[in-house]
Amino acid sequence: MSQNNAFYAQSGGVTAVINATACGVIEAARNHPDQLGKVFAGRYGILGALQEELIDTSLESASAIAALRYTPGGAFGSCRYKLKGLNENRAEYTRLLDVFAAHGIRYFFYNGGGDSQDTTHKVAQLAQQLNYPLTCIGLPKTIDNDLPLTDNSPGFGSVAKYIATSTREAALDVASMAKTSTKVFILEVMGRHTGWIAASAGLAKTQQHSAPHIILFPERPFIVQEFIAKVQHCVTTYGFCVIVASEGIKYPDGTFVAQANSKDAFGHAQLGGTAPVLAAHIKQQLDYKYHWALADYLQRSARHIASKTDVEQAYALGRAAIAYALAGHSNIMLTIERQAGSDYRWAIGHAPLAQVANREKALPNEFIDAEGFGITAQAREYLLPLIQGEDYPPFVDGLPNYVKLNNQLVAKKLENAFS
Amino acid sequence: MSQNNAFYAQSGGVTAVINATACGVIEAARNHPDQLGKVFAGRYGILGALQEELIDTSLESASAIAALRYTPGGAFGSCRYKLKGLNENRAEYTRLLDVFAAHGIRYFFYNGGGDSQDTTHKVAQLAQQLNYPLTCIGLPKTIDNDLPLTDNSPGFGSVAKYIATSTREAALDVASMAKTSTKVFILEVMGRHTGWIAASAGLAKTQQHSAPHIILFPERPFIVQEFIAKVQHCVTTYGFCVIVASEGIKYPDGTFVAQANSKDAFGHAQLGGTAPVLAAHIKQQLDYKYHWALADYLQRSARHIASKTDVEQAYALGRAAIAYALAGHSNIMLTIERQAGSDYRWAIGHAPLAQVANREKALPNEFIDAEGFGITAQAREYLLPLIQGEDYPPFVDGLPNYVKLNNQLVAKKLENAFS
Repeated sequence: MSQNNAFYAQSGGVTAVINATACGVIEAARNHPDQLGKVFAGRYGILGALQEELIDTSLESASAIAALRYTPGGAFGSCRYKLKGLNENRAEYTRLLDVFAAHGIRYFFYNGGGDSQDTTHKVAQLAQQLNYPLTCIGLPKTIDNDLPLTDNSPGFGSVAKYIATSTREAALDVASMAKTSTKVFILEVMGRHTGWIAASAGLAKTQQHSAPHIILFPERPFIVQEFIAKVQHCVTTYGFCVIVASEGIKYPDGTFVAQANSKDAFGHAQLGGTAPVLAAHIKQQLDYKYHWALADYLQRSARHIASKTDVEQAYALGRAAIAYALAGHSNIMLTIERQAGSDYRWAIGHAPLAQVANREKALPNEFIDAEGFGITAQAREYLLPLIQGEDYPPFVDGLPNYVKLNNQLVAKKLENAFS
Repeated sequence: MSQNNAFYAQSGGVTAVINATACGVIEAARNHPDQLGKVFAGRYGILGALQEELIDTSLESASAIAALRYTPGGAFGSCRYKLKGLNENRAEYTRLLDVFAAHGIRYFFYNGGGDSQDTTHKVAQLAQQLNYPLTCIGLPKTIDNDLPLTDNSPGFGSVAKYIATSTREAALDVASMAKTSTKVFILEVMGRHTGWIAASAGLAKTQQHSAPHIILFPERPFIVQEFIAKVQHCVTTYGFCVIVASEGIKYPDGTFVAQANSKDAFGHAQLGGTAPVLAAHIKQQLDYKYHWALADYLQRSARHIASKTDVEQAYALGRAAIAYALAGHSNIMLTIERQAGSDYRWAIGHAPLAQVANREKALPNEFIDAEGFGITAQAREYLLPLIQGEDYPPFVDGLPNYVKLNNQLVAKKLENAFS
C-alpha cells in the first residue's frame, strides 16, 4: 500500500448527500492502494486536522462505507470554522501542513461551500510556497446552491425535492380544510441570501391556480401591501393561499422580516421566524385563519426523499476527486456541468479554486416572474432535472436504517496541541 | 343499478390516508351495483349534506378512484363543523335526512374523529325515530390516535413514521454540527391533548445515547428546571440534545407553554409555538445554540413517507364499511383489532357508536418512562407495528403524482337552502 495518505473533511452545514460524496472518495481511493494509502477524515471537519483528530476510515467495513451513500448528516462531523487569511493567521495553515506531514498526507479533499473552497485554495498556495507536495481538491456542497462555476451544488437537489413535495402535500391538506378552517398556509424555508430553495417550491405548481400561490424571495423587497393584496386575491379566487417564504426576505429598508419578530417569551431578541411575522401581517389585515411550518433542519436532512440525481452527482464527485487527484490535478474545485441539448445530461468538470472564492451565485433575475411571487418557465427548466428520481434508503423496522461509523482516531504524532 | 345510494363524508383535520378509506368505500361499493347505487361524497364534509352539495363519485374514473389510495388531504373537502345536540338543533339533523331522502341515500358513512362518530350516532338515532331506513357506519380517522375502542386510528401510523424518520434524520444533522454550532434541536409536533405523536418519535431511539433525548408529553407537567437539567445533561454527555415536544404541553399551573409566547410582532396574542418558548428557556439558562422546527401540516400530509400498515388499514376499513353495511350492520364504528400473539396481526372489528362518543384515549401512563422524558418498551411494542412498511406514491417528474378529482356536484332537488 502506498504511503501517501489522503485527508477528507466535511465543512459547514451538512446535507442529505454530503456523505455520498465521502462514500465516493473512500470507495474510489480503496481501488488504488498502490497510489493512495489511507483516507483519514477530519473529526468535525477541518478542526480534525488542526487538532490532529484524524479518523482512520480504513477501519470501516466496505458495507459501512457503502451505507454512507444513503446516510444524511456528516458522518465524520462537520464544523463552522473559517480559517482566517493566510497573512493574518499563517500559524493555522502551517499547523495543517504539520499535521499532514506527520501523517503522510499528500492529498487534501475539502467538501464544503464557498468558504471551504477558499480555505482549500489558501492551503494549496502555502503548500506550494513551502514546497510541501500536496494535491488540493475542493468538492462542492451546499443546500443553498449559491456556489459559482458549477451548474448546481450537491445537497440542493434533495432540499428542492423535499420542499416541492412538502408544499404539494400540505397544499392538499389546506385545500381540504379551507372552507371552515385554515385558509392560509406558510412554509418557511432556508436561504438567507438567495432564493434557490424557495424557488424550488414552484416546481409543485402545475397550473395557474395550484399551490404554491406565493413565493417570497430574498432577491425581492418584501412589500407588505402587495403581499396582503395577493393573499387576499388568492383566498378570494381559490379559497385558500399557500405561501413559501425564504427565511431571508427583507423589508424595503433592508431589515429582515424575521427581525420584526424580535422578542421571545422573556423579552430577548428572537432568532429566526419569518413565517410568524407574515402570519401576523395576515391576521392583522385580513384575519384569515392560518397555519405555518418551519422545516428547518428537516429539509436538509430528509434523505428519505432525496433526489436520485443529487445522490448520483454527490457520489460521482467523490469518485472523480480521486481520479482527478491521481491524474495530477490540484488547486481545483470539481463542478457539475450541464450538457447542451433538450434532455438533461451532466458531466463532471473543474474550475480553478482561485475563481471560486468569495463569489455567491444569486438566483437569476429571469427566474422570478414579473409579479415577483413565482418562478418563470426558465427557472423550471433549470430546476426540474435536479429533483429527478427517487433513491430511498433501506428501511428496517419501519425506519430508515442509517449507518453510524466507528470513527476511530489515529494516534497523535505531534507533541504540541493546536491552540 | 340499485336506487339505494350512499353518502360518504370526510370530517375534521385530514390525514395522509383518509382518501385511502374513501377509495375503499367507493371501490367496494362499485362491486355491488345491485345493492348499492351511487356513492355521493359531501363537498366539505357534512356541510355538503346540509347544503345539498353532493359530489357524484360515479363520474370519476376507476383510475382516479384508485389514485385516492395514495393521495393525501381530503379529496372531497373536509370541515370543522360540529353538529349540536339532537334536542338543541334538531333542524340540522332533519335537514340531513331531508337531503338523504331527496337523493335516495340509505347508507351514511362518516369518516372522522370522536365528534364525527357522535354525529353519526345522533343521525342514526333520529333516522330510527323517524322511521327513515338509514344504515349508519362510522369510519375512524385521526392523527391523534385518541379514539377509544379501536387499537389505533388510521392516519396516526403515517404521522408516527414521519415524525420518527424526521427526528432520526435531523438528529444526524445536529450530531454533525454540535461541536461548533447547534447543540440543541427542538421538533414541535401535533397533539394538543395526548402525547401519541410525540411518543412515536421515541421509535427513532435505538440506544441510550441516541436521539430523541427528550420527549415532552402533554400528559406530564412541564417543569422548567427538570427540563433544563436534562438538556444540560444531554449536551454534556452526548454533545447535543434532540427534543421532541408536543404542542400541548403545559406548566404545572395548567397554562400552555405555547401561551407564554404570547405576543406576535404587533403585540397580539400569538397562536402556537411551544418550540420557541422551550428555545427561549434554553437560551436564557444555558445559552446553547439551538434550532427548532415546526412540522405542522407537513406531518399529517406527508403521504410520501406513509406507513404501509396505515394505508392498508385505512383502505381495508373503507371496503369493510360496505361489507358491514350490506350485511345489515348499522350504528357502529369500525375498529382495528390487534390480534393476540407475538407477531403483529390485525383484523377489522366494530363497536357500537354509543360507546365511542366523548371518550378520548390518552397515552397510557405505562407508556411514559419513570423520568417522564421517554417511552417505555411497552410503548415501543405498541407503536412499532403501526409504522411498518413503505407505500410510496407514484412519482412523475420528480414529484408525487397525486390525483385531483373532478368533484362534479349532483343537481339540487330541495327548494329550500340550508341556513
